[in-house]
Amino acid sequence: MKPLIGVGMVGYAFMGRVHSQAWRNVTAFFDLPVTPSMAVLSGRSEDHAAAAAAALGWAAVETDWRELVARDDVQIVDICTPGDSHAEIAIAALEAGKHVLCEKPLANTVAEAEAMTAAASKAAARGVRSMVAFNYRRVPAIALARRYVAEGRLGEIRHVRAQYLQDWIVDPEFPLVWRLQKDKAGSGALGDIGAHIVDTAQFVTGQLLTGVSALTETFVKERPLAEGASGLAGGSRTDGRGQVTVDDAALFIGRFDGGALGSFEATRFATGRKNALRLEINGSLGSLAFDFEAMNELWFHDEAQADAGFRRILVTEPGHPYMDAWWPPGHGLGYEHTFTHEVKDFLEAIAAGTDPSPSFEDGLRVQRVLAAVEESAANASRWTPL
Amino acid sequence: MKPLIGVGMVGYAFMGRVHSQAWRNVTAFFDLPVTPSMAVLSGRSEDHAAAAAAALGWAAVETDWRELVARDDVQIVDICTPGDSHAEIAIAALEAGKHVLCEKPLANTVAEAEAMTAAASKAAARGVRSMVAFNYRRVPAIALARRYVAEGRLGEIRHVRAQYLQDWIVDPEFPLVWRLQKDKAGSGALGDIGAHIVDTAQFVTGQLLTGVSALTETFVKERPLAEGASGLAGGSRTDGRGQVTVDDAALFIGRFDGGALGSFEATRFATGRKNALRLEINGSLGSLAFDFEAMNELWFHDEAQADAGFRRILVTEPGHPYMDAWWPPGHGLGYEHTFTHEVKDFLEAIAAGTDPSPSFEDGLRVQRVLAAVEESAANASRWTPL
Amino acid sequence: MKPLIGVGMVGYAFMGRVHSQAWRNVTAFFDLPVTPSMAVLSGRSEDHAAAAAAALGWAAVETDWRELVARDDVQIVDICTPGDSHAEIAIAALEAGKHVLCEKPLANTVAEAEAMTAAASKAAARGVRSMVAFNYRRVPAIALARRYVAEGRLGEIRHVRAQYLQDWIVDPEFPLVWRLQKDKAGSGALGDIGAHIVDTAQFVTGQLLTGVSALTETFVKERPLAEGASGLAGGSRTDGRGQVTVDDAALFIGRFDGGALGSFEATRFATGRKNALRLEINGSLGSLAFDFEAMNELWFHDEAQADAGFRRILVTEPGHPYMDAWWPPGHGLGYEHTFTHEVKDFLEAIAAGTDPSPSFEDGLRVQRVLAAVEESAANASRWTPL
Amino acid sequence: MKPLIGVGMVGYAFMGRVHSQAWRNVTAFFDLPVTPSMAVLSGRSEDHAAAAAAALGWAAVETDWRELVARDDVQIVDICTPGDSHAEIAIAALEAGKHVLCEKPLANTVAEAEAMTAAASKAAARGVRSMVAFNYRRVPAIALARRYVAEGRLGEIRHVRAQYLQDWIVDPEFPLVWRLQKDKAGSGALGDIGAHIVDTAQFVTGQLLTGVSALTETFVKERPLAEGASGLAGGSRTDGRGQVTVDDAALFIGRFDGGALGSFEATRFATGRKNALRLEINGSLGSLAFDFEAMNELWFHDEAQADAGFRRILVTEPGHPYMDAWWPPGHGLGYEHTFTHEVKDFLEAIAAGTDPSPSFEDGLRVQRVLAAVEESAANASRWTPL
Repeated sequence: MKPLIGVGMVGYAFMGRVHSQAWRNVTAFFDLPVTPSMAVLSGRSEDHAAAAAAALGWAAVETDWRELVARDDVQIVDICTPGDSHAEIAIAALEAGKHVLCEKPLANTVAEAEAMTAAASKAAARGVRSMVAFNYRRVPAIALARRYVAEGRLGEIRHVRAQYLQDWIVDPEFPLVWRLQKDKAGSGALGDIGAHIVDTAQFVTGQLLTGVSALTETFVKERPLAEGASGLAGGSRTDGRGQVTVDDAALFIGRFDGGALGSFEATRFATGRKNALRLEINGSLGSLAFDFEAMNELWFHDEAQADAGFRRILVTEPGHPYMDAWWPPGHGLGYEHTFTHEVKDFLEAIAAGTDPSPSFEDGLRVQRVLAAVEESAANASRWTPL
Repeated sequence: MKPLIGVGMVGYAFMGRVHSQAWRNVTAFFDLPVTPSMAVLSGRSEDHAAAAAAALGWAAVETDWRELVARDDVQIVDICTPGDSHAEIAIAALEAGKHVLCEKPLANTVAEAEAMTAAASKAAARGVRSMVAFNYRRVPAIALARRYVAEGRLGEIRHVRAQYLQDWIVDPEFPLVWRLQKDKAGSGALGDIGAHIVDTAQFVTGQLLTGVSALTETFVKERPLAEGASGLAGGSRTDGRGQVTVDDAALFIGRFDGGALGSFEATRFATGRKNALRLEINGSLGSLAFDFEAMNELWFHDEAQADAGFRRILVTEPGHPYMDAWWPPGHGLGYEHTFTHEVKDFLEAIAAGTDPSPSFEDGLRVQRVLAAVEESAANASRWTPL
Repeated sequence: MKPLIGVGMVGYAFMGRVHSQAWRNVTAFFDLPVTPSMAVLSGRSEDHAAAAAAALGWAAVETDWRELVARDDVQIVDICTPGDSHAEIAIAALEAGKHVLCEKPLANTVAEAEAMTAAASKAAARGVRSMVAFNYRRVPAIALARRYVAEGRLGEIRHVRAQYLQDWIVDPEFPLVWRLQKDKAGSGALGDIGAHIVDTAQFVTGQLLTGVSALTETFVKERPLAEGASGLAGGSRTDGRGQVTVDDAALFIGRFDGGALGSFEATRFATGRKNALRLEINGSLGSLAFDFEAMNELWFHDEAQADAGFRRILVTEPGHPYMDAWWPPGHGLGYEHTFTHEVKDFLEAIAAGTDPSPSFEDGLRVQRVLAAVEESAANASRWTPL
Repeated sequence: MKPLIGVGMVGYAFMGRVHSQAWRNVTAFFDLPVTPSMAVLSGRSEDHAAAAAAALGWAAVETDWRELVARDDVQIVDICTPGDSHAEIAIAALEAGKHVLCEKPLANTVAEAEAMTAAASKAAARGVRSMVAFNYRRVPAIALARRYVAEGRLGEIRHVRAQYLQDWIVDPEFPLVWRLQKDKAGSGALGDIGAHIVDTAQFVTGQLLTGVSALTETFVKERPLAEGASGLAGGSRTDGRGQVTVDDAALFIGRFDGGALGSFEATRFATGRKNALRLEINGSLGSLAFDFEAMNELWFHDEAQADAGFRRILVTEPGHPYMDAWWPPGHGLGYEHTFTHEVKDFLEAIAAGTDPSPSFEDGLRVQRVLAAVEESAANASRWTPL
């Protein structure tokens, strides 16, 4: 029998549901050196948390995350709350010697992210591991894309075209949920989905952005208050509407340290695009294209080949990243298993005593890009170096 | 707390792994009237079965399926073995008053399928339920296709084009596994994947085939014996090769009772196609197209619409079949959840005291089509009525 | 200056318009050994023919095709009439020593096609050339597909999936035009578009069909008479409706002399498919896929390649068949240039003194397949050898 | 008979070949009030020009464009030369009372474009017409896109994503042709293909850009001299290589006067993309997507529709822009007919005495955007208003 390692999860909304699915299933597919035990879930409402724990497979419940962090049966703290609480929880957990898996964006500000990274660095010296949950790195097709670039199959990278297009708030009567409030979410499309394309682009190319020029926009400036909303910064009002305090869309162009040019766009107003995380990379020897709406496919153009053309690689074959564990070729995976893979890699790193990736420092790098985008957008698209 | 209902699963290879995933996760997504308990798994080798049970989440192990059927903590028997044992296990379980979920094809012969259907019918009179595992009916896009046809949105159906294309035995050195042996598998591509397109086409159109004209072919007639193969009907030989006794490909054309024409093709030699279950239906008012390699998409053409054209419906929205339970739009599902949905519907039918669908009778209907295909192919493609 | 060669075209409806476009433009793109002169067009109505000649660029008009054939300034007779007149015109022209380009299907019956082939053979002995206008062979992507198969890049061919899907008569009020009358058109979807997929499949694979099993259907059995219709075989009636005497759809399965299995479908009732001539070929080493609705693309899967997948070859590169003559890569061609290429190859063969391809014998082969399909369909899908 | 109108074409390279194809064929498809007569072509080399005239169908040749402009049989001057000569020729022709069709970009500088626009304005007062050849406006799918936006079917436009991706100079040994020299071409990818996406985006949305922030890059800074190159500004050198003096790629973000955000990218280094002029537009009620590599398709998402999704409209139906003149549905057009449509609209405007579109003023507007992009790129991506 493999040694057990106890997990405590803070928050149980969308991200908590997906993380639970990962913890619950990872050992059925991957032969791991340790076995995660779904020890405890924390949430402020005891009733709701208990119901969630029952449905999602957690053995116990705490109503205060500090209690969860303090428990002896918790060695891993998995943070699935909004960004405004990441720093406090993560730093407390790391200081308590607990490994931390933290949802992205790492924090709502660069300062918080810096403090978290410092805490992670100190903890690492004591063998305590931390990881930021940029789950799209674990899409097999994205991992294969990274492999191709690392092997030099694209040659010198010239262009990165990254978009994350959604449309869930196109309706102006969609309510003012926490993701539309700066004090909770830090930013809007930028931090929520823009963070993913920044991380994914840097991960796949192995290059870092060196500067950006940006635009942001809030198309719908006021929205109905969400049910049960209270204490809105910016003010709830007598008419039942409140101010949207984050961006609806963020566009920027930039340069990478390896010489590539990048074009980025994150928006929640791309009507008809549901979860279109798209990445297209052109190099001197080849090109890649990906769209998460068809997550099992990677398109690759190999310039050296006669009669070349983008080919649709169904990334479901043995030998493809993570795919030895799964179904036969052509029997595709779904969204949730980006998290299964994340948890697998995290557990393996903990067991091996190595630092998992992406690290809090990677998360801080993304945070700095987000901050530079906001700074540039606030200053007439001024070039903002990183 | 919901009442528990014990499940015993016979077999733990590919199908067993997928069924386990469904049993393990169904309650995390669907609010069911009963809660499945993964009581016991049976397999001939105790060691292997115990390892599988540990990995897949089953509480106990039996080495004889008869013991499993007899256990008090088993109310559902889930049959995941090759087709040659379906009839015996299913009939025994039904007679023992256990609900049965049986993998497809229902049996290896029409006679077996008839006996199973008779047993199911008798059992149903006593409130014992049975279901054949045509999982593709539970792809949300396929269920949506059925809904469209049932609502009359396609008008009168004229054409059904159904293909199931794989390529996993293109290499002539691929070994003679059980799926290539008639005594184990009943038939080749025909029963394994042809059965799926027959059922899916009949399900979506709501029409039954009335006759067929068919061709079958075995392209590679001998193959290396698989490791550990023994007692091959047809003879293992001194050269380490054995005879392939099933079809590699089956093609047929047919007519449906509602007036549609059908073209069917099942093959394991479609190089480059991995799991391309494709269905295209043309009606007087519209058309549908589907390919399992992009399982979250349904293509629909509405003839009444100005500037019509096939539109790509990403079947991941609330209101789409099964999708209220899942992730936000655009965060697609994977292969395994066709089984999660199957298990959900099965459990709901048991709790409601209704007969689940597809029934053993549906399985028998498919079996008769398979038999007619083989008969036609053996008689110079002679028209063979059903 | 290149020598002139006079062309006389019989008929000026859809096919006549496209052929005119080819004759008018071929020398602007291809450096040919002879220059076609658009000498004369014939049509029964002098006024209509004269208007067509003016619009399409023909120098003169005849109202009797016999006069056209007899003219000294005509060395090539281009037959663009319905199938019922092909034999008479072609044989007369060949006997008069005129090269003949004849639209497909070669004739309405095998007997006519045999007579034409005999005439072509006799004429060839005297240096008179003939060609049947299976224009789809001259789609650059189809020509490239042929090249791939001929080079052995697909290995042994196992599967041919050929469909020609249109929808222009889905509306039951669409009138009874000549293409829906057996005495004019010979057959329906079968001869009109089925002929194309038979020829294209045999051309690309280099294999001939050896037998077929078929179904045909006429979904809409009566239609309003077309304006100006008269003398309908089968009878016009007092209610202004007449009988459809041809098939709306034809499906068949068959075997090729190289061992491949084929599945064919031609229909005018595939709602939403406009001109979907689709071909998919699976071989032991690779596969090809094509759809005329995206005529500049050929999809190729190379099994030997690591991380293989169908790649989209944009067949617009120098070195691709016919493409040295055209625009830069990515600037696609349209439908009409399949005829431009046809005329180019025909003129080059005439100048070189070689027999162009596809020959009348190729046309006869297709005719025999069409006849076998009709025979099989009329005899309960009985296997019908070729 | 329709009155003749004489055309003189200056230049006969790529653009001259395409324009010739348009002039030669337009009357075969469109019933025009005037008939163009291909009177004369001019080119500096008499031999080359004469050969081109013979192949392309021009009746006479001049070696000096001034002679062409002066001819009595020329009422239209069609300018197909590099951008550095547009202003001089166009102004001379307009002053001589000749209608002018001028290739894009209108000029190499804003000053030239202003002078041309002033000349066009003066000429218009005398009934002399001018048009800039942004041919992509005449892709039927693009014209349909414009119709949709104008009809309000997209609602309020929020996002424009425009890319023009090519790869013909990825090879660093590709020679230093005139398009890579600033004095001839004005700019690189920016003016050559960036101009098209600026015009197309403004045309389809009906909105004008109000400001931009930009990056440009020259990835390969030196190239082999082209054969016969001489007098290179920037200096040919003893090593047979010369300096590339234009951009290889230009990226910019911007805002439109109707509130939309735009992201633009023009590059000749998108390996594997051949002529990918892509446009994607998101509005509050719907979205459109287009890629010239599949030029007969427009993708449309209608938010109001249940089970919405992007639908592939094959823009080949009667009623679609320009398509009444062409082949049956599904028989697509090629690149060249964007010019056929351009010439048709130009001739109709001349005959009707109205100003054709896009006007020189439209060309000037694009020129100002190109200049703003260069200015922004030269000033650290500074926001540059228009």
